[in-house]
Amino acid sequence: MSSIQSYITSNKQRFIDELIELLKIPSISADSAYKKETIQTAEVIKTNLKKAGCDRVEICETEGFPIVYGEKIIDPKLPTVLVYGHYDVQPPDPLDLWHSPPFEPVIKNTDLHPEGAIFARGACDDKGQMYMHVKALEYMTSQGDLPCNVKFMIEGEEEVGSVNLSHFVKANREKLENNVILISDTGMIAKDVPSITTGLRGLSYVEVEVTGPNRDLHSGLYGGAVANPINVLTKMIASLHDENNHITIPGFYDKVENLSDAERAEMAKAPFSLEAYKKSLDIDAVYGEEGYTTNERNSIRPTLDVNGIWGGYTGEGAKTVIASKAYAKISMRLVPNQDWQEITQLFKTHFEKIAPAGVRVKVSPHHGGQGYVTPIDSIGYKAASKAYEKTFGKTPIPQRSGGSIPIVSLFEQELKSKTILMGFGLDSDAIHSPNEHFGIWNYLKGIETIPYFYKYFTELKQ
Amino acid sequence: MSSIQSYITSNKQRFIDELIELLKIPSISADSAYKKETIQTAEVIKTNLKKAGCDRVEICETEGFPIVYGEKIIDPKLPTVLVYGHYDVQPPDPLDLWHSPPFEPVIKNTDLHPEGAIFARGACDDKGQMYMHVKALEYMTSQGDLPCNVKFMIEGEEEVGSVNLSHFVKANREKLENNVILISDTGMIAKDVPSITTGLRGLSYVEVEVTGPNRDLHSGLYGGAVANPINVLTKMIASLHDENNHITIPGFYDKVENLSDAERAEMAKAPFSLEAYKKSLDIDAVYGEEGYTTNERNSIRPTLDVNGIWGGYTGEGAKTVIASKAYAKISMRLVPNQDWQEITQLFKTHFEKIAPAGVRVKVSPHHGGQGYVTPIDSIGYKAASKAYEKTFGKTPIPQRSGGSIPIVSLFEQELKSKTILMGFGLDSDAIHSPNEHFGIWNYLKGIETIPYFYKYFTELKQ
Repeated sequence: MSSIQSYITSNKQRFIDELIELLKIPSISADSAYKKETIQTAEVIKTNLKKAGCDRVEICETEGFPIVYGEKIIDPKLPTVLVYGHYDVQPPDPLDLWHSPPFEPVIKNTDLHPEGAIFARGACDDKGQMYMHVKALEYMTSQGDLPCNVKFMIEGEEEVGSVNLSHFVKANREKLENNVILISDTGMIAKDVPSITTGLRGLSYVEVEVTGPNRDLHSGLYGGAVANPINVLTKMIASLHDENNHITIPGFYDKVENLSDAERAEMAKAPFSLEAYKKSLDIDAVYGEEGYTTNERNSIRPTLDVNGIWGGYTGEGAKTVIASKAYAKISMRLVPNQDWQEITQLFKTHFEKIAPAGVRVKVSPHHGGQGYVTPIDSIGYKAASKAYEKTFGKTPIPQRSGGSIPIVSLFEQELKSKTILMGFGLDSDAIHSPNEHFGIWNYLKGIETIPYFYKYFTELKQ
Repeated sequence: MSSIQSYITSNKQRFIDELIELLKIPSISADSAYKKETIQTAEVIKTNLKKAGCDRVEICETEGFPIVYGEKIIDPKLPTVLVYGHYDVQPPDPLDLWHSPPFEPVIKNTDLHPEGAIFARGACDDKGQMYMHVKALEYMTSQGDLPCNVKFMIEGEEEVGSVNLSHFVKANREKLENNVILISDTGMIAKDVPSITTGLRGLSYVEVEVTGPNRDLHSGLYGGAVANPINVLTKMIASLHDENNHITIPGFYDKVENLSDAERAEMAKAPFSLEAYKKSLDIDAVYGEEGYTTNERNSIRPTLDVNGIWGGYTGEGAKTVIASKAYAKISMRLVPNQDWQEITQLFKTHFEKIAPAGVRVKVSPHHGGQGYVTPIDSIGYKAASKAYEKTFGKTPIPQRSGGSIPIVSLFEQELKSKTILMGFGLDSDAIHSPNEHFGIWNYLKGIETIPYFYKYFTELKQ
């Protein structure tokens, strides 16, 4: 048994307990009702980073939630790894679909996780995955096994667009100087199929408001004679996709990178069962853009999804009303070369244009970020690949993810270094959904694998 | 000054105070949280009917909210008027748009109501209009001026479909026997343009649920690859109208009564200003079925309106989620000859059929009712017309309303008598909307006019 394996065996229960404590705090950055708890989470991270051996740990205030920064510089001449993660979590609703309360973590065994999984909001995204790095650091510092310098930057606004982190990065280029950025905020193909994420989609998130009459109206007295904002909104949203599920916003696809047949053939080699996919979601068919496979649709193609819609009477029973206003939250996942700000503007212009007479439309951008693609011949990628080989006994598969970590492309732009996305979660972990969980096996495997990345990166870099 | 006018002058403040007390009770039949208050309202009505001179006042239990019944039989050989009204009210939300709390009535002067209007949920629909009949009865019994028999039937489920009232009517044909049914639950064209409602639209109210994946999903990892229930729902709803705003449900228009050009020309004579209509709603254009005027669209033509829609994340900020489910409440206003149960079935069949693979659809009918048209040569209509002439100094205009009182066509079928719809509200009273109100002038004018209906009906009938 390796030194890291025996360290994990000896400290397993404590590693789990510490994560559970962190998961109890509802650090929901999107909801201002949880401001206090979100700030409190930053304090807990600070304490834990110090205990794990970081020097110069500090809470960096921003206009929003603070960023926790820490570093361990053992020799300025050695390479530096910058670890990024986030302590904020998605809102937990719909609460009634959780089998146990989202902020009262419980360990349950599942078919995929016979060793147990921790069920709680943020278990995987990203408290669990971020905390693997803290524990890996603890091992390396306590055992005198840290081969290079390390910096930590843990933010509290990833789920709401990282606006203040981007200011922080731009203002602290020197402090954050590094040779590689390491993030665990993605997943792998399966427990026995390790993978490294080489691409992320960009994001543009907007909120739309359609206003019709100046007050809610009786649907009998006015029905049929005035534009009903909900009916209009459904028509406008429906028109954003054509019959082949292409997005109809003019200019939307202009800069989309089209993969070659060879690249698509390479992608198609990743293990995937359409039947298992449909079964796991309990759907009778997949649905998406004509001409692309499921794995292409959710990684190399841009999308437009309504994330929320509301208007009129939504309570129990019936109310015969024509609402004055209807709303929707709409996000677009973007692929490399699509500029999120340009896409947001294209959306806004188009959506305002298609509004019929009789209603007024307001489009408010929420946040966004660029997509990202990383090459597989970098030192960082090679180091990560070797680390997985060491602990999984298999070469990881490079894969494009459909998700977004908008800040990654900014890191490259501002800090001039590549990001390596070493994720240990699974698609079935239900991140952003009720009953989010993270396998204990995955959590410990992450802690075991990370120190090898430091080792190989330092070796390959020198 | 007539006897009724001087009675009103002497008792005006008490009439207003009694209505205000009634309006303070939140009798929201659609919301089970207000069950106690709704039942309490029935008790208050019972007490007030007794005080007004009714004999045999009783609370008739149903499977839902009770019906208050009362009668004053002065001579079995004289005609009998059956008064119908309802003591339940619409839900008050959205609460934030009310300028004063919906169940704390206040009197305010407005441009249209320089004599003051009572602002409260139910002020016009229908507590205020129903209570005019109680006070008119009080006048007639206290002054020995009641010319015929009267029966009262006040229900508590009009806003949720009158299902239990229809059972009650079918089971009590003899008890409810009458020569004419009198209802004040509609409006008139303007304060100086009295009108009698001769037509009501029918109603079919359904709730739909679209289910996609078995859980909420991360919109990055799954976006573009699975059917998003909200996007699908918007597409399905949008497809229910064509580019001319005709409803696309097969068979929907098959039985629609088409008015002759002469009838449409007659309708067009009613005073109406499109500019004032648009201004009062703060809209730049009206919107509706091609080929029809605004007044036709909201009276003689059937409609399909979404009354509520919801799904996904609707809180503050952003959540990148694909919801498992999306919902809508949809109502169709129907015209005479359209059978509401047949239309409900046509909707259900069509809506299920247009669901794409990848989602499941559930359509749950809420309630409904038939439309109604009453002739203008009946004794009841003539008596009402004479009553308005007496108190307004003008012959009232017959008009079709876009609203629905589903129970009216059942009355005709079960009780074999015509219903006369003498309304004293105005379109601008904001029934079903925030800031519902009822003009004190209108309230008192109703109390003044009703006794003349009894007088003329009894005279014409004999």
